[in-house]
Amino acid sequence: MTMSLAACASDMPVINKAVIASEWTVAQWFNTERPLRLEDLRGKVVLLHAFQMLCPGCVSHAVPLAERVHRQFADLGVAVIGLHTVFEHHAAMGPVALEAFLHEYRITHPVGVDQPMADAPIPQSMQRYRLRGTPSLMLIDRAGCLRLDKFGRVDELELGMWLGRLLAEDPARSMSTGQGMARESDGCTAEACMPREGRG
Amino acid sequence: MTMSLAACASDMPVINKAVIASEWTVAQWFNTERPLRLEDLRGKVVLLHAFQMLCPGCVSHAVPLAERVHRQFADLGVAVIGLHTVFEHHAAMGPVALEAFLHEYRITHPVGVDQPMADAPIPQSMQRYRLRGTPSLMLIDRAGCLRLDKFGRVDELELGMWLGRLLAEDPARSMSTGQGMARESDGCTAEACMPREGRG
Amino acid sequence: MTMSLAACASDMPVINKAVIASEWTVAQWFNTERPLRLEDLRGKVVLLHAFQMLCPGCVSHAVPLAERVHRQFADLGVAVIGLHTVFEHHAAMGPVALEAFLHEYRITHPVGVDQPMADAPIPQSMQRYRLRGTPSLMLIDRAGCLRLDKFGRVDELELGMWLGRLLAEDPARSMSTGQGMARESDGCTAEACMPREGRG
Amino acid sequence: MTMSLAACASDMPVINKAVIASEWTVAQWFNTERPLRLEDLRGKVVLLHAFQMLCPGCVSHAVPLAERVHRQFADLGVAVIGLHTVFEHHAAMGPVALEAFLHEYRITHPVGVDQPMADAPIPQSMQRYRLRGTPSLMLIDRAGCLRLDKFGRVDELELGMWLGRLLAEDPARSMSTGQGMARESDGCTAEACMPREGRG
Repeated sequence: MTMSLAACASDMPVINKAVIASEWTVAQWFNTERPLRLEDLRGKVVLLHAFQMLCPGCVSHAVPLAERVHRQFADLGVAVIGLHTVFEHHAAMGPVALEAFLHEYRITHPVGVDQPMADAPIPQSMQRYRLRGTPSLMLIDRAGCLRLDKFGRVDELELGMWLGRLLAEDPARSMSTGQGMARESDGCTAEACMPREGRG
Repeated sequence: MTMSLAACASDMPVINKAVIASEWTVAQWFNTERPLRLEDLRGKVVLLHAFQMLCPGCVSHAVPLAERVHRQFADLGVAVIGLHTVFEHHAAMGPVALEAFLHEYRITHPVGVDQPMADAPIPQSMQRYRLRGTPSLMLIDRAGCLRLDKFGRVDELELGMWLGRLLAEDPARSMSTGQGMARESDGCTAEACMPREGRG
Repeated sequence: MTMSLAACASDMPVINKAVIASEWTVAQWFNTERPLRLEDLRGKVVLLHAFQMLCPGCVSHAVPLAERVHRQFADLGVAVIGLHTVFEHHAAMGPVALEAFLHEYRITHPVGVDQPMADAPIPQSMQRYRLRGTPSLMLIDRAGCLRLDKFGRVDELELGMWLGRLLAEDPARSMSTGQGMARESDGCTAEACMPREGRG
Repeated sequence: MTMSLAACASDMPVINKAVIASEWTVAQWFNTERPLRLEDLRGKVVLLHAFQMLCPGCVSHAVPLAERVHRQFADLGVAVIGLHTVFEHHAAMGPVALEAFLHEYRITHPVGVDQPMADAPIPQSMQRYRLRGTPSLMLIDRAGCLRLDKFGRVDELELGMWLGRLLAEDPARSMSTGQGMARESDGCTAEACMPREGRG
């Protein structure tokens, strides 16, 4: 019942991944009037970036770069989503602190608070995406396939090029490729969204 | 006998141009064993950048960025060509000086010396491309159409995105679109390479 | 009973100030085993910088620059002191959050939390120093005179030059100039530490 | 008849040197109406920087930094002098090329062309100062003593601090220390200006 890798790998140019991207689980949203679901963004190229407001590399590079992509490429069909994946210093990085951070840094793209776990420091979506830490950046194509997943600093020229390639993909073609995808993902649960569980 | 704009405009996504790119006229080449012609690069995305070795913006941004594109994207099908368009301080920027510059700055992509004019300070290709100055950057698609032409500093994220979009275009499709192109450009002279003459 | 400007202005080269620097009032210290008093730093050149952990200019420039001064010049006799002057988003920038910030940004110089006021958003020392906002940087000479006070981004070359000039001043000479200073400041109260109260 | 090190070492704080600085030998000057001699700059702090117009580190860091020191500190008594020490690519870096470079990079401080040698690639002053290469920066105090000599990139904060310390030194005191200096340097020849000859 889980998605096969094949549906995403298909014949599309692959960057470094080709799996169905899982839905995130978010406790609270900022910069959006209503909760966002990855599924509702089909047809767009999604830049999903995981950060922590006290992670120096996030503050100096990853978050400003994500915001620039939002401002420069939103009109072209790129949806930028931030995910605040707090896995340390939880008391210092609650939603009130995050709200102040987003305000002071003039962040305008939607940001969701990754759902904390009662019994573990790593929040739910971060576990599901098996992220190594922050900053992490994922690119999801118009058909919902995870096409790139990168930990650490991202080269701007490379990021621009990846976005350009994904934007150039025909949504219709992706969708038709994705038909089997849709069928196979019937009854897809949150768990079914974790095709990478089998790794390692 | 000159190319019509239509052949390039076609149905391809346009960045800010859609005209047949003219051939350059080069007096001397560096970093290549034989002279290069734009026509021989059909099928590749061409980044053509015009610079002067004593232009501060070229040295600090444009030339290093072009070299990075060459090193990062040559394997993906991008051909980077530098054009040394000397339009001032001619005595200081001759081929001997340029060779030292390319050596010291570790420039490895092909660079041609734009053919000087006997009776004018602006060299031949620079006139033909109607460049406003240096640095200038042009992107030419797989079918030979000039798709972007920009004077001054270029944003890395934007440049990456443009390259990604042009790389994603099907060369075959461009070629079929370009069939009329090829036919019409038969006997194409240097003058016929200047479809922008009609402007302004 | 308050210090006269004359004692500080004296014949020493002035940067842009010459007043007795007031003591700070700190609720909690980090990166020091015991509370620090400005008076105990007589003989050293003191760089006192006011910041907030969610102030972008502080995080990107002022705090890293202060830390560099600490690492490069502590052995030469410069004491770097940070003052966390929270005047907005109080809930997001409490001591627990500050501690996480100092840890993540590898800040090793002493930092004090400016004493909050029960009835006003601006904390006590920030009011006393009449700071316009964050980041603010003050330089206090070996004799305890405030010699420079600057709001906003500081030029590194200028800062280095100011520090070099203050380091070159003879502490003994400052001290002898400062004798009257010491006598007059006997019984110096918090109010007596505010020679700038009389301004504007 | 050569200066003893003692005269410069004296009791002044030493950065990393304490020798009489030699005069330069310059073939041609730019940005000054008349030839400059180090001796005529006694009483000023002199920043002497050796560069080549095709040396990437010089163009990106050292030359702009020297120009900033000139613009920010000339009024305080710092004299910035550039020395074009061409030791390679001689044909590409003649005076005509240098003039174009200085114009395009808006360099306003005095620059001298280090006197070429008929029989060696390294020019005369560069040999005399025993420089390792470019960029090199030397600081000479108000009394004419070489106090710092550094090859490669210079930290701005450090450079500012060194300049501040040298500016704070009493010229009169340096001069009285320098009396023996003046006497001993009577009839000082180019050779007598090379106290570092005895090294290594």
